[in-house]
Amino acid sequence: MIKRSEYERVQEQAAAAIRAAGIQLTAAEAARIEVVDFGLSHVAVEGVQVFTMFATERISAKVLVMLPHQTEPEHWHPPVGGDPGKEETIRVIAGTLLFFIPGPDTMREGWVPAGKAGCYSCRHEIVLKPCDQLTLPPGTKHWFQARDGGAVFYSFSTCVRDGLDRFTDPAIVRQTVISEDDEVEAGAR
Amino acid sequence: MIKRSEYERVQEQAAAAIRAAGIQLTAAEAARIEVVDFGLSHVAVEGVQVFTMFATERISAKVLVMLPHQTEPEHWHPPVGGDPGKEETIRVIAGTLLFFIPGPDTMREGWVPAGKAGCYSCRHEIVLKPCDQLTLPPGTKHWFQARDGGAVFYSFSTCVRDGLDRFTDPAIVRQTVISEDDEVEAGAR
Repeated sequence: MIKRSEYERVQEQAAAAIRAAGIQLTAAEAARIEVVDFGLSHVAVEGVQVFTMFATERISAKVLVMLPHQTEPEHWHPPVGGDPGKEETIRVIAGTLLFFIPGPDTMREGWVPAGKAGCYSCRHEIVLKPCDQLTLPPGTKHWFQARDGGAVFYSFSTCVRDGLDRFTDPAIVRQTVISEDDEVEAGAR
Repeated sequence: MIKRSEYERVQEQAAAAIRAAGIQLTAAEAARIEVVDFGLSHVAVEGVQVFTMFATERISAKVLVMLPHQTEPEHWHPPVGGDPGKEETIRVIAGTLLFFIPGPDTMREGWVPAGKAGCYSCRHEIVLKPCDQLTLPPGTKHWFQARDGGAVFYSFSTCVRDGLDRFTDPAIVRQTVISEDDEVEAGAR
């Protein structure tokens, strides 16, 4: 759950980060940036911001924004019917992105969010800077994180079916619920 | 056929255009920008410059550069085996791109290169500016062109098989042949 006022504030931050990274965005595009809290209700800790340029049945291109110190929870893209699962290539545009995949524990710059050790199994750290790329075969578990400056990067992939993503954290719900500010205030009274 | 010196000059122009459009590029990436003359040996008239970020068996992301007044010849992406053919989405980053697809003749800003009327059948003009996007279903004939300022744009697609592209102009050969400058000079003596 995220309050509408916070949703809009984070959306504006994300649009500003994309533009500062040199990517043009129309006002309508900025207004449809998706703020994802994974149902965990602390978007600044675990979350991601997504600008989908387009998504068809075959391919998709997105620009993702990580706020400073934000972590996208560990997940993978399972097979769907005859599709072996989403193949994804990341290319960093701005900032430093810490990327975690299966492999030997090389974690140095990253950290697991407090109290979540069981929800982050990958500890093989890859530090990605602007122009660095990484292609993830379908089904590869991964999570990522930004340091002080945040990060902006492309995610190019085969057909996106976010609703079918699998997460290590059982508390996660992929759909972000926005609550109207006055509802929350009413609830608090 | 293109002289190595011209190839390298155009490559540098393309890298400069990509960077001026806000897209970062490493030196190694700039050095592998492909200059394509379609075997027509007049790249400034008919040609294209291609920076392939990556290309897998399933998807590809490229940045294309059109020099001022350059035209990419009419072509389409045919079915290959069980694949219905390349699906492609264009998104303009900088400049104005004139895009031609099947449909009523609406050509206003574009022109067919001199003496090539039979090689450009599509006259339905779409004017694309930064942030404008267009998705081409597989098999759609198309060609494109830049005006005074040139153009830089993304091309996101399913698996790229450039060697299998079909062109309206029977003189086209997809492979660009580079001649060493001294060979050409030797031939001219």
